Amino acid sequence: MIAHTEYLTMNTKKRYEILDITEQVEGVRQRATLRDGLLLVSTMHITSSIFVNDHESGLWADIMRWLEDLAPAKPEYEHHRTGEDNADAHLKRMLLGHQVIVPVTGGALDLGPWERIHYGEFDGRRPKRILLKALGAQ
Amino acid sequence: MIAHTEYLTMNTKKRYEILDITEQVEGVRQRATLRDGLLLVSTMHITSSIFVNDHESGLWADIMRWLEDLAPAKPEYEHHRTGEDNADAHLKRMLLGHQVIVPVTGGALDLGPWERIHYGEFDGRRPKRILLKALGAQ
Amino acid sequence: MIAHTEYLTMNTKKRYEILDITEQVEGVRQRATLRDGLLLVSTMHITSSIFVNDHESGLWADIMRWLEDLAPAKPEYEHHRTGEDNADAHLKRMLLGHQVIVPVTGGALDLGPWERIHYGEFDGRRPKRILLKALGAQ
Repeated sequence: MIAHTEYLTMNTKKRYEILDITEQVEGVRQRATLRDGLLLVSTMHITSSIFVNDHESGLWADIMRWLEDLAPAKPEYEHHRTGEDNADAHLKRMLLGHQVIVPVTGGALDLGPWERIHYGEFDGRRPKRILLKALGAQ
Repeated sequence: MIAHTEYLTMNTKKRYEILDITEQVEGVRQRATLRDGLLLVSTMHITSSIFVNDHESGLWADIMRWLEDLAPAKPEYEHHRTGEDNADAHLKRMLLGHQVIVPVTGGALDLGPWERIHYGEFDGRRPKRILLKALGAQ
Repeated sequence: MIAHTEYLTMNTKKRYEILDITEQVEGVRQRATLRDGLLLVSTMHITSSIFVNDHESGLWADIMRWLEDLAPAKPEYEHHRTGEDNADAHLKRMLLGHQVIVPVTGGALDLGPWERIHYGEFDGRRPKRILLKALGAQ
């Protein structure tokens, strides 16, 4: 049984940003030599997301607008009494989720035709880590 | 260690539909001969969901109405400039999530008394696949 | 390969409550003697959540207010025709999710600096169980 762990560091230029990280996930799979099993992709920060959806810039814009509708940036959050200004990012990250399990079969990420793995950043412009852990058979 | 993979094909009659797939998941567990471990259930399409909730038709109607309130079908999404008309399905699927891990203990799905595994379809009337992967001990 | 399972019973004083359960999860990891692998934390009830976010009481209040905005308690749900009054709890639990996978590396929960594991209760004041399953290497 393989248990292989890596960490990616993200540092977005914008405060809010969506990035496709599928190729980086496949790189970890290769270095893990995982042939059959599960690959956890989990952000280690509580103001960002990992999610699976379409790689399409129009949809990415729709997602960001939708998140802003449902969990708007505004001053009135209680969390801001601590001096923070990012309560909306804590909420947005929960709408999309903070981790996915990518199945690996026959030595490849076992994804549907349009499934791509994304990083959603809601409080960026600083280094933030993603943990990847492969578990299964070589 | 077992690593066993199967694919289910769904083809709903309606564009929007909720189906209880717990029995099919248990069938995969049996064929995998998984006794203790984790069973990933993950839709391979980006306009459908896998989620755990109550098998109760009134609640299913509440869920569909709620999803429509929070992520309505409407023409104005940027994603629709690609010719698609299903941006709402991409958003709805993220509210419920696209995968669950079902724990398996003592040769059975280790679910609470009311926990049932559901498939949520938001752009149906065509074949779509679910991946199931069992990982653990025989 | 280790496959170790435990159950925690929660019994909140209030109907709606958020609790940090990170220390209990670490206790399970220790008893499992898991050194490298995955630890599933999954509520067995369909009106509660498991999620990862900040341990900060202001944010917890923001989360509860936000859930009430997006999935309000009200009489009009169809689910209530069964005699239940907790449809809002079924919806709130889906916004935050019902399970997380905690990575374990080098004999410790591999969490980011602010990541804490929380139990979200939306229909409490009665005993409810959480399942924890450790899978990996000793």
